[in-house]
Amino acid sequence: MASGRVAIGRLFFFALRNHHTAPPTPHYSLWRAISTAFREERDTFGPINVPADRYWGAQTQRSLQNFEIGGERERMPDQLIQAFGVLKKAVARVNIEYGLDPSIGRAIIQAAQEVADGKLNSHFPLVVWQTGSGTQTNMNVNEVIANRAAEILGKKPGEKVVHPNDHVNRSQSSNDTFPTAMHIAAAVEIKNRLLPRLEGLKDALAAKSEEFKHIVKIGRTHTQDAVPLTLGQEFSGYTTQVKYGIDRVQNTLPHLYQLAQGGTAVGTGLNTRRGFDAKIADVVAIETSLPFVTAENKFEALAAHDAFVEASGALNTVAVSLMKIANDIRFLASGPRCGLGELLLPENEPGSSIMPGKVNPTQCEALTMVCAQVMGNNVAITVGGSNGHFELNVFKPLLANALLQSLRLLGDAAESFRKNCVVGIKANHGRISQLVRESLMLVTALNPKIGYDKAAAVAKKAHKEGTTLKDAALNLGVLTAEEFEELVVPEKMLGPSD
Amino acid sequence: MASGRVAIGRLFFFALRNHHTAPPTPHYSLWRAISTAFREERDTFGPINVPADRYWGAQTQRSLQNFEIGGERERMPDQLIQAFGVLKKAVARVNIEYGLDPSIGRAIIQAAQEVADGKLNSHFPLVVWQTGSGTQTNMNVNEVIANRAAEILGKKPGEKVVHPNDHVNRSQSSNDTFPTAMHIAAAVEIKNRLLPRLEGLKDALAAKSEEFKHIVKIGRTHTQDAVPLTLGQEFSGYTTQVKYGIDRVQNTLPHLYQLAQGGTAVGTGLNTRRGFDAKIADVVAIETSLPFVTAENKFEALAAHDAFVEASGALNTVAVSLMKIANDIRFLASGPRCGLGELLLPENEPGSSIMPGKVNPTQCEALTMVCAQVMGNNVAITVGGSNGHFELNVFKPLLANALLQSLRLLGDAAESFRKNCVVGIKANHGRISQLVRESLMLVTALNPKIGYDKAAAVAKKAHKEGTTLKDAALNLGVLTAEEFEELVVPEKMLGPSD
Amino acid sequence: MASGRVAIGRLFFFALRNHHTAPPTPHYSLWRAISTAFREERDTFGPINVPADRYWGAQTQRSLQNFEIGGERERMPDQLIQAFGVLKKAVARVNIEYGLDPSIGRAIIQAAQEVADGKLNSHFPLVVWQTGSGTQTNMNVNEVIANRAAEILGKKPGEKVVHPNDHVNRSQSSNDTFPTAMHIAAAVEIKNRLLPRLEGLKDALAAKSEEFKHIVKIGRTHTQDAVPLTLGQEFSGYTTQVKYGIDRVQNTLPHLYQLAQGGTAVGTGLNTRRGFDAKIADVVAIETSLPFVTAENKFEALAAHDAFVEASGALNTVAVSLMKIANDIRFLASGPRCGLGELLLPENEPGSSIMPGKVNPTQCEALTMVCAQVMGNNVAITVGGSNGHFELNVFKPLLANALLQSLRLLGDAAESFRKNCVVGIKANHGRISQLVRESLMLVTALNPKIGYDKAAAVAKKAHKEGTTLKDAALNLGVLTAEEFEELVVPEKMLGPSD
Amino acid sequence: MASGRVAIGRLFFFALRNHHTAPPTPHYSLWRAISTAFREERDTFGPINVPADRYWGAQTQRSLQNFEIGGERERMPDQLIQAFGVLKKAVARVNIEYGLDPSIGRAIIQAAQEVADGKLNSHFPLVVWQTGSGTQTNMNVNEVIANRAAEILGKKPGEKVVHPNDHVNRSQSSNDTFPTAMHIAAAVEIKNRLLPRLEGLKDALAAKSEEFKHIVKIGRTHTQDAVPLTLGQEFSGYTTQVKYGIDRVQNTLPHLYQLAQGGTAVGTGLNTRRGFDAKIADVVAIETSLPFVTAENKFEALAAHDAFVEASGALNTVAVSLMKIANDIRFLASGPRCGLGELLLPENEPGSSIMPGKVNPTQCEALTMVCAQVMGNNVAITVGGSNGHFELNVFKPLLANALLQSLRLLGDAAESFRKNCVVGIKANHGRISQLVRESLMLVTALNPKIGYDKAAAVAKKAHKEGTTLKDAALNLGVLTAEEFEELVVPEKMLGPSD
Repeated sequence: MASGRVAIGRLFFFALRNHHTAPPTPHYSLWRAISTAFREERDTFGPINVPADRYWGAQTQRSLQNFEIGGERERMPDQLIQAFGVLKKAVARVNIEYGLDPSIGRAIIQAAQEVADGKLNSHFPLVVWQTGSGTQTNMNVNEVIANRAAEILGKKPGEKVVHPNDHVNRSQSSNDTFPTAMHIAAAVEIKNRLLPRLEGLKDALAAKSEEFKHIVKIGRTHTQDAVPLTLGQEFSGYTTQVKYGIDRVQNTLPHLYQLAQGGTAVGTGLNTRRGFDAKIADVVAIETSLPFVTAENKFEALAAHDAFVEASGALNTVAVSLMKIANDIRFLASGPRCGLGELLLPENEPGSSIMPGKVNPTQCEALTMVCAQVMGNNVAITVGGSNGHFELNVFKPLLANALLQSLRLLGDAAESFRKNCVVGIKANHGRISQLVRESLMLVTALNPKIGYDKAAAVAKKAHKEGTTLKDAALNLGVLTAEEFEELVVPEKMLGPSD
Repeated sequence: MASGRVAIGRLFFFALRNHHTAPPTPHYSLWRAISTAFREERDTFGPINVPADRYWGAQTQRSLQNFEIGGERERMPDQLIQAFGVLKKAVARVNIEYGLDPSIGRAIIQAAQEVADGKLNSHFPLVVWQTGSGTQTNMNVNEVIANRAAEILGKKPGEKVVHPNDHVNRSQSSNDTFPTAMHIAAAVEIKNRLLPRLEGLKDALAAKSEEFKHIVKIGRTHTQDAVPLTLGQEFSGYTTQVKYGIDRVQNTLPHLYQLAQGGTAVGTGLNTRRGFDAKIADVVAIETSLPFVTAENKFEALAAHDAFVEASGALNTVAVSLMKIANDIRFLASGPRCGLGELLLPENEPGSSIMPGKVNPTQCEALTMVCAQVMGNNVAITVGGSNGHFELNVFKPLLANALLQSLRLLGDAAESFRKNCVVGIKANHGRISQLVRESLMLVTALNPKIGYDKAAAVAKKAHKEGTTLKDAALNLGVLTAEEFEELVVPEKMLGPSD
Repeated sequence: MASGRVAIGRLFFFALRNHHTAPPTPHYSLWRAISTAFREERDTFGPINVPADRYWGAQTQRSLQNFEIGGERERMPDQLIQAFGVLKKAVARVNIEYGLDPSIGRAIIQAAQEVADGKLNSHFPLVVWQTGSGTQTNMNVNEVIANRAAEILGKKPGEKVVHPNDHVNRSQSSNDTFPTAMHIAAAVEIKNRLLPRLEGLKDALAAKSEEFKHIVKIGRTHTQDAVPLTLGQEFSGYTTQVKYGIDRVQNTLPHLYQLAQGGTAVGTGLNTRRGFDAKIADVVAIETSLPFVTAENKFEALAAHDAFVEASGALNTVAVSLMKIANDIRFLASGPRCGLGELLLPENEPGSSIMPGKVNPTQCEALTMVCAQVMGNNVAITVGGSNGHFELNVFKPLLANALLQSLRLLGDAAESFRKNCVVGIKANHGRISQLVRESLMLVTALNPKIGYDKAAAVAKKAHKEGTTLKDAALNLGVLTAEEFEELVVPEKMLGPSD
Repeated sequence: MASGRVAIGRLFFFALRNHHTAPPTPHYSLWRAISTAFREERDTFGPINVPADRYWGAQTQRSLQNFEIGGERERMPDQLIQAFGVLKKAVARVNIEYGLDPSIGRAIIQAAQEVADGKLNSHFPLVVWQTGSGTQTNMNVNEVIANRAAEILGKKPGEKVVHPNDHVNRSQSSNDTFPTAMHIAAAVEIKNRLLPRLEGLKDALAAKSEEFKHIVKIGRTHTQDAVPLTLGQEFSGYTTQVKYGIDRVQNTLPHLYQLAQGGTAVGTGLNTRRGFDAKIADVVAIETSLPFVTAENKFEALAAHDAFVEASGALNTVAVSLMKIANDIRFLASGPRCGLGELLLPENEPGSSIMPGKVNPTQCEALTMVCAQVMGNNVAITVGGSNGHFELNVFKPLLANALLQSLRLLGDAAESFRKNCVVGIKANHGRISQLVRESLMLVTALNPKIGYDKAAAVAKKAHKEGTTLKDAALNLGVLTAEEFEELVVPEKMLGPSD
């Protein structure tokens, strides 16, 4: 099926065209336009034509025609499809134990592995915005695996030698496979992409905190000058935020590790055999090297997706943290001459098409935009999660898509920010030193000595007259020059006294 | 100061008036209008009149005049004020160790205890919408405690025998006291109100699950008829949701137990002595019987409030769960004759002012409205949490108010729902039994015997012709009456087979 | 009933106590505790005791006992209660035309006017978190008006000489009165509070824009130095944002002016007479001097509250605008010595309890906190608005409360910001002038003369070597001193050329 | 460059692989892997290799390497790229008037037209998550047009015969082009896709309202049985919601029609000539047949994107409306035997992989999932919109992407819902008629005759004893059989009386 690649190429090219200048081009008609050959597939609704070079069957094709929403860009995420591959492989393995014809079972396992490996991604054309149980994607998986397994067995697609329902979907329902694939995809993405990247970011910030530990700088509260701290202390706050963010994400894993598989249609496990659910979870755990278990309560696992809302809540908190950090860094690096100018960011690209020489905090910008989308997705997930009814939540594809997007974007953006920004941050020593020396807020150091009210008078006088604190203090006669010099030392203001 | 109660009464009465029909009545002018006597207080800005029968001082009075936003309804939450009382008492105790005059210290402790007990709530008139560090409320607390402590010592208010800054606020900054009070208030509210009430709700749902365990009913997926389950199984899903919700809330406590106190203005702990922070946390832990500790990183604790965003995320997930449960219950109880009618809810009040005899699921409605507000507050908290800059997040009062409201409303609504709805739910046995017998979805039980395609044909035929499944099956000749009777038994469809 | 004021005073005082340190004090038990006398009221559920000095009746009392959620702080907003007064007066007037006994009708009108005037606010104890149709508040209004009208007629409360349902609620349902009161309250609040205050803010910003029109300053994009503009131009952007915000809010009024009254229970107008709906709208329009009309489609008006979601969307946009403006102003005023320092804000209060002399942008902080809450309320309203089912949306009290809070807070905060911040803003001329002269971005003026690439080289050289642009340009030999002086004039960079 | 299609095909295929099972495959490395030839491009940062068969240049290539965030799926939306084509064509036309070499200008116009037509979409590889001003996409457009224009003129790419900055970007900045393209893309999408589709949906609902106008059915409030209405009346509510939604979206167009072009870097219009801005808007208006004008205030147009927040608010309200409608329809169609069963939806596909014969409300599900995402995107847009600073909002690509996604999804889902659901909805006459006859709520018709309290007694008796209302009424002796028959006629309960 090598021609598939070319066809997809053309599809992709065509799909990009004319979204609004021409009358809307239906997604489905693309396939009709570019496919040169078809074969007939059938389901309980009757026969239907599908592209000859695609493994999918009748139900996939119907969905393609019935849900022309959003186009290529809105395809079901590949992570989910590949998680389905892992799942279908595991189920086939267990089904063989329970009596599935081993030759059919082995062909299913091989085909499912290809799905898991992403080799068949181009056979999954369905968009997120389909049936809310994800049934059509479950059937897409069943059909592709059935036809590919048939091919492996030397049969033709569409003949149902390997039956998408009776063999590939045996002892399953979309209602338990889809949430199982959701959990696998999310947990794998968290463990293999997000957490390592947050760890990397945390380490990079910690390294900067260490590097900057002796640089004394002005503190700022209410955006106003405050008492000093070290740049290392400032970065230690960021480090802690990311560190706690990692904890928050990890806290959500126990519920994500619970798999719905075995609940079948409504959570009872009808049409499965006792122990089926736990066996599946065991095989998935082995396949992914993650501690998946069967869900403690299958009714909850189908009807609600609180585990996804919980995970999204953790991502929302991480987004809040990263927004704060990125904002600080861009403001501290503002300038070069008319801003705060305390940090120097790496120059990765020309910043402006009209202002030569300008370099912008673009990594901060990409990251904060990602954070805004994660916050938005959290609301989408909240709305979807709260609208389940009775035995099934039917916002599953939305939930899967939004969470996987948030995970992917946060992971990628954290890594980009680390690599292209944080590790290259330099302190602008001269500027930092100049600002802290000029600050009026060192007056706080006088509080214990001369009391709050007199200290205020010194600061106000210096502020009003544009002089140094020392001049103002001497002028007001509240202490001697020696006393002032001994008391007002930024380096002594960085922690509790003994 | 017994007249205070009357004054407040009048204030409250006046405050309710004429929000929009008259020109806006300023909040501050109320005090001017109803107070018959004033005394002069002063701060670094100079003298200012305050009501003679109130303990607050100059800075509180200025805030009252400068922030006429929202009126009485928007006062800083009492839980926060009372948490401040706990904190100020703890600090005074530690400050005595570090040299504070013991007689002043003891008077502060006594006054702070009165604040903690809620006895002085009417002396805290400031609204949430003030300075973003909560400085004005910290000063309100300092001023009230100072004046009350002076009174205890036999002095007059305003003389500053007990100084709000030098004594009550000693070794503190608003920047560390306010977040400390936030954490104390939130953790106490979670432990003393929310969690016990969620536990109560969980237990009530579990009891219903047990009570209903033998009632076989139709399942519903996509809002459509599906295979059967027991009503007890359905309620077990709800029970699990609430149980996991409790876990989610508890997961947030470790970060809430970290106290910022000792960070002072920017996190360095300037103007404190070594060990001060940990001692405060110890005393607060003893006072509240909760395991508070000093924050691992004070820079994070002042500049970010991720712990509040995290906690709000957990509440958001609980709200999602409760929305689902309450929606299910009201739909299952819909009727009495034209709905699903499977549940009977307790009749607590007349339902309609025009339709006699109608009883509505009002507890479900109150609860789902609360859930919607909690979801909204989560966004407010997300926005506020993400907008910290440099050494201080200045959305503190918003964060405190929104989280405490969410906590209070969820706790109260969970309890109201439990008490006035869940414990009184009855199964409508006749209706449940009738529906499950009529359902076409029992056909699923035929799948393993006659295959998916034939089973579909049976169901379609019965649906089209309005007959029973049995009639359709016999008519199509796919199995005998005996086979049908043996296979299609709802009671056998409630779990995996052996 | 003069003693009512004192009782409320005590209630208020008591309500403030012990939210978390003591076992939760039920809201209802307060009334039991503090009321010394009761009378018996009855409804279709039977008899019940109510406080003797309150006008409310049985249904109010039941709600008080059944919905102990949130306490005093969560009472139904006074604006809504007073709007109900306007409505009930209008309905009584029309009902007299349709046959209501005129003496009863006149007593109702007088009592309703007292409700509209806010004179009876202390007789409305119910919280927002009640039945989702607001039936209990509608009945609270009916009961209070009935008992007060009876009193006017010389009768005793509870005797139902004036019947809350048959007389006061005649030809109405909670389902049409509550949304009608919602629309009246919101429209009045918009017209009488929010819009005038946004106009005031717009005018204050416009005045500053004019005042600052000749002050040339550095522009900043990506928080980085950019080409110059005037401070007046910068403020003209803010002015335009607020001006458009006013347009956005006004755009929502046509739908808010549509009143549901006359739809009764499900929108059909059952139990009303033809023309009743339009007559009510006419009287309300006269009473409020606002162009209310009867809703074009009553089914939409009861089952959906899209008009509230629409209005909240406009407020959300205004909040976005004000957040931007307030953030800019606080950053531009950051300092006094280590920030941007271009603006000087009025000093309204001492800023810090530990750092004397510090003055913070507290009005910006209050405003941005309000904006965050408005954004959160928009989500609460979105969730509530989307969850209507069939003929009735039952998130009405939530929607009313959240929108009215957003309106009130935005209006008050805009006014506070105007009065206590914007009108007092001063330009820090010396600082502004110094920054713009130092900027490297004036190099852009060289683009048309020497091309982009050479201009970039000049800027980079000056940046690297810390010199002026002029030195760098001469050094690179790209133009003469005279050419430079003629080209690089900030005052010439403020607009298109001829 | 025909090989481009194949390369893209391979890219697409590869991009789908191994998101989580393998170490993350960098987006950029794909190009390195699949491109067989490169050419050198250069910018102010120096030389860099780009794929030989792509028109883009150095700055695009740098962005590709610096922002590996999200992969193919997150490419900048095609609508925006094509809007850029429209804009660049317009600017070139105006620049010729102002002195741009006409032969270069004409080549730019031709190349820009190809971008506008979507012919060059495969030359825009950059993701949304880049610099927040969209500079890199503006440069991508400049580079592609420059190289393609050079090709048209018979020159080689990379030689800068047509210079991306000096020619294509002449008199422009990313800061004004990007928001201009945002507005063009959004307005075109609204006018050409969303509004026609909402009109189509409104008409389909109106047709059903007309078709169902004589079908009397039970009303439901609080999900409980209420008084009757016609199915046509119920659908008239939906029709009105969509009709008002169209108004809401149209209300946002005036601000979207304002174009930032001519503001250049900070809004002053530096480096443009007087009148340039208005001329551009005129040409864009002609090209798109939409009434674009130059923005009244360019500072607002660059620094804020309130127009996008406003538009998103309208979409949020439409999403709320559609969520309500779709929820109603799926509940009314619930069944076939154990739900409300009043509506029959078209069967578009097999519903369940395990339950044969089941047909689900999948179009409602797709639509409500879209609504949830639109609500989430509204929060993302709110956060992004509120975080602009000084002269530039740097969340532009996020805002563009989220709004365009919401527009596209809402438009497509509305059309899919109309075509595949609404037009095929049938009333289930028998069921509707049975339910309304059984209802107890017809008792309301007795109110005017026998009073509220007696009517309640009748309903309660019938409810308790499971009898008809008539039996209960006669039994209680409140009226005669004749009176009952005359009063209780559902067909007479559908509107006000005369």
